[in-house]
Amino acid sequence: MTTERENASDLVVIGGGAAGMTAASRARRLRPNWRITVFERGDYVSFILCGLPYFVDDVIASHESLIVYTPEFFEKERRIEVRTGHEVRRIDPQQLLEVADLRTGRTFAHEYRKLVVATGAEAVRPKLDGIGLGNVFVLRSIDDGRRIKATLQGGGLRHAVIIGAGYVGLEMADALTIAGLQTVLIEATASILPASEPEIAEVVERELAEHGVQVRKEEMVQRLEGNRRVERAVTSRGEYPADIVIVSVGVRPAVGVLQQAGIALGPTTAVATNERMETNLPGVYAAGDVAEAHHLVTGKAAWVPLGTTANKQGRVAGENAAGGNAVFPGIVGTAAVKVFALEVARTGLTEAQAREAGFDPVVATIEHLSHAGYYPGATTLRVKLVADRPSGRLMGGQIVGREAAAKRIDVLAAALHARMDVEALVALDLSYAPPFATAWEAVQIAAQQVMGRLGRSDDP
Amino acid sequence: MTTERENASDLVVIGGGAAGMTAASRARRLRPNWRITVFERGDYVSFILCGLPYFVDDVIASHESLIVYTPEFFEKERRIEVRTGHEVRRIDPQQLLEVADLRTGRTFAHEYRKLVVATGAEAVRPKLDGIGLGNVFVLRSIDDGRRIKATLQGGGLRHAVIIGAGYVGLEMADALTIAGLQTVLIEATASILPASEPEIAEVVERELAEHGVQVRKEEMVQRLEGNRRVERAVTSRGEYPADIVIVSVGVRPAVGVLQQAGIALGPTTAVATNERMETNLPGVYAAGDVAEAHHLVTGKAAWVPLGTTANKQGRVAGENAAGGNAVFPGIVGTAAVKVFALEVARTGLTEAQAREAGFDPVVATIEHLSHAGYYPGATTLRVKLVADRPSGRLMGGQIVGREAAAKRIDVLAAALHARMDVEALVALDLSYAPPFATAWEAVQIAAQQVMGRLGRSDDP
Repeated sequence: MTTERENASDLVVIGGGAAGMTAASRARRLRPNWRITVFERGDYVSFILCGLPYFVDDVIASHESLIVYTPEFFEKERRIEVRTGHEVRRIDPQQLLEVADLRTGRTFAHEYRKLVVATGAEAVRPKLDGIGLGNVFVLRSIDDGRRIKATLQGGGLRHAVIIGAGYVGLEMADALTIAGLQTVLIEATASILPASEPEIAEVVERELAEHGVQVRKEEMVQRLEGNRRVERAVTSRGEYPADIVIVSVGVRPAVGVLQQAGIALGPTTAVATNERMETNLPGVYAAGDVAEAHHLVTGKAAWVPLGTTANKQGRVAGENAAGGNAVFPGIVGTAAVKVFALEVARTGLTEAQAREAGFDPVVATIEHLSHAGYYPGATTLRVKLVADRPSGRLMGGQIVGREAAAKRIDVLAAALHARMDVEALVALDLSYAPPFATAWEAVQIAAQQVMGRLGRSDDP
Repeated sequence: MTTERENASDLVVIGGGAAGMTAASRARRLRPNWRITVFERGDYVSFILCGLPYFVDDVIASHESLIVYTPEFFEKERRIEVRTGHEVRRIDPQQLLEVADLRTGRTFAHEYRKLVVATGAEAVRPKLDGIGLGNVFVLRSIDDGRRIKATLQGGGLRHAVIIGAGYVGLEMADALTIAGLQTVLIEATASILPASEPEIAEVVERELAEHGVQVRKEEMVQRLEGNRRVERAVTSRGEYPADIVIVSVGVRPAVGVLQQAGIALGPTTAVATNERMETNLPGVYAAGDVAEAHHLVTGKAAWVPLGTTANKQGRVAGENAAGGNAVFPGIVGTAAVKVFALEVARTGLTEAQAREAGFDPVVATIEHLSHAGYYPGATTLRVKLVADRPSGRLMGGQIVGREAAAKRIDVLAAALHARMDVEALVALDLSYAPPFATAWEAVQIAAQQVMGRLGRSDDP
């Protein structure tokens, strides 16, 4: 491999994000005497990528707010060796890594006894003419965020184009509008938030329009044009002036070095694991955005890269790597995003996903107040529920609104974990007080409608 | 009985509140041709008692906002005969009622085939010298609310005394302070919100003090004094000037006429029912504040009179009275209240209740942010969780805070319905986005601490 060979670590973690640092910390708790080393390619560890849009629009002043703990903290408080600027180039299943120090160019070998791979996900950069121009960015790292923010603060920008209307695209539409830019959001498919129910996406699209974001659907960006810096985006339907372009067409698991080592990927192209977060290689665990998870509704592998799951998987991988016996039962696909004043939340399967997964879905979409109508400030929540026709079991739900929509989804997430049917949902003893809720919660009104459509009963 | 005898109703409902009107409406859906009659003693039906504090302090201008539907609506739209100002004086199990028209004094007999008793609860009025003085009120009806509001609007009031620091007492402390009165809240026990965890009540007490409410605990009101109108409250420890007194020492089920008929009460002194809401008398159902419910955590009968439960029980009673086959599985004791800017929410058992019920409770109390610390506006949530030591099963939880505390309790309520243990709670896939939540929700941090105390694992 290489000439220089370092002493073995009991545990090596590749990747210093949420999953990796949680795994390292957890292992330290159980194994006070182990040598634990983290290799991180970038300059930061323990960073919070989901806060980046708020750093860009200056809601958060310093990027340091997005770093939970510094490498020094981990070294001193947890005796974890954190080596930033180090890239693992090769994984030899015979417990050896080839590592490059990106600052010096030096490569060396490092032995491990247990390994947690937490390499995360990387932004997809489509092959597009002009994608290498100045002021064309993805947003996937602290450094990406710093570059975008510096560009905005340089001033003189008027027009922004965002390619891709997923979560990051929407958050950046919000952020760039607040930063004062005329923003166009271009989505190749027929719907913004492609994983959302159309009845929910429609409300979000209205919110974007009301804040001056121009939404273009079923439109493909064909090339970016400019002179060193980007000046315009040319699409299948027209062209848009662009002083800055954000490319947010998705992420993919960072599996390059893992595949070469023979670590098996699952059907989603992320790393396959069992519920102990073990990969196919003995002593090698995977966690976080690079790993699949068991979807508790479909019973199949899914890839939903989110910080919440990264924390949970990292905890389990770290505990098991240290000789423990923890399990990560799986996910139900819960997520939330803020778009201007709207909270948009989802859990479980959409109607379309339920059909694809082989279920016969029955659905209801309702609007209901966020709290008692006679108490000031009540706003409309829109809820869509999806249930399985033969069993009545809840398959998924989405909520959009201006008051606690994000936290309201959690009761549906818990219902999915518990495999409740819509009748059980109607029977739940949920909290009520006029300033916060209605006596029947919106999700229960929706569940009653589903019951009606199942011929079980109907609304009261 | 009496001379005049009216034709039979297929269904009679006694009491026109949430439970009664829901039962009548539900029965109408299933039985388009039945004669359905509701006897209500007061002037209103379908009223919302929990909105009364907000009517008193003029957040809600008109009492009409607290009436969901008028008698005319029920008559015209649902062909339900609604007879307000009618009191049922006697129930003959041989399907006959003795009814008094309170406006004319006339009494008559009315036959029923099925009966739903939904007589609600009534305010406890302690035997206290001076309780009959002017400006001494309970708050349990629309008329009570109108009287208090008229008194406040009459002007000249400076000092208020509230006796009893339960939900209504706290809401009235909030309302009267906002109405500009110097308010003293007097509680006989050692804690405000006697059904709350002390760690939660402590935060509420601080909120009251910060808004100028004087809280007096372990203090008994001995008499009220004044000259026609109340002028002061004399307690075991002193005396307080009082231009108005609110007596909020609790409610009890309105079972007078029911007991005489031989309808069996349960251990809580509310009406005992099975999960079909059937009483011991054939064809006689009970629902709402007059009825017990099965507590899903203790497995025993409980009496927690709340509008949410009234709606659910009314629906089941109405459906079964009409020949259907619905069940009300039970409650977990979820409730919420606003106290100035605080949301105070509970579900399940407190530590003390768990111990009383024969469990060996293990608890954790934690403070955690309501959303990501780097995103503006994050506030502190305090959470207390109670679990059963041998099984780790969740027994209850309470949350107090300024951001979505009320709706955050719902995930714990769902967990109680599903009999989840703390490990399952930690594994829940809950929603996260920096403006709304933290990657580990506060309830999950608390559940991790409980796990640590159970020796199962500990915080990450």
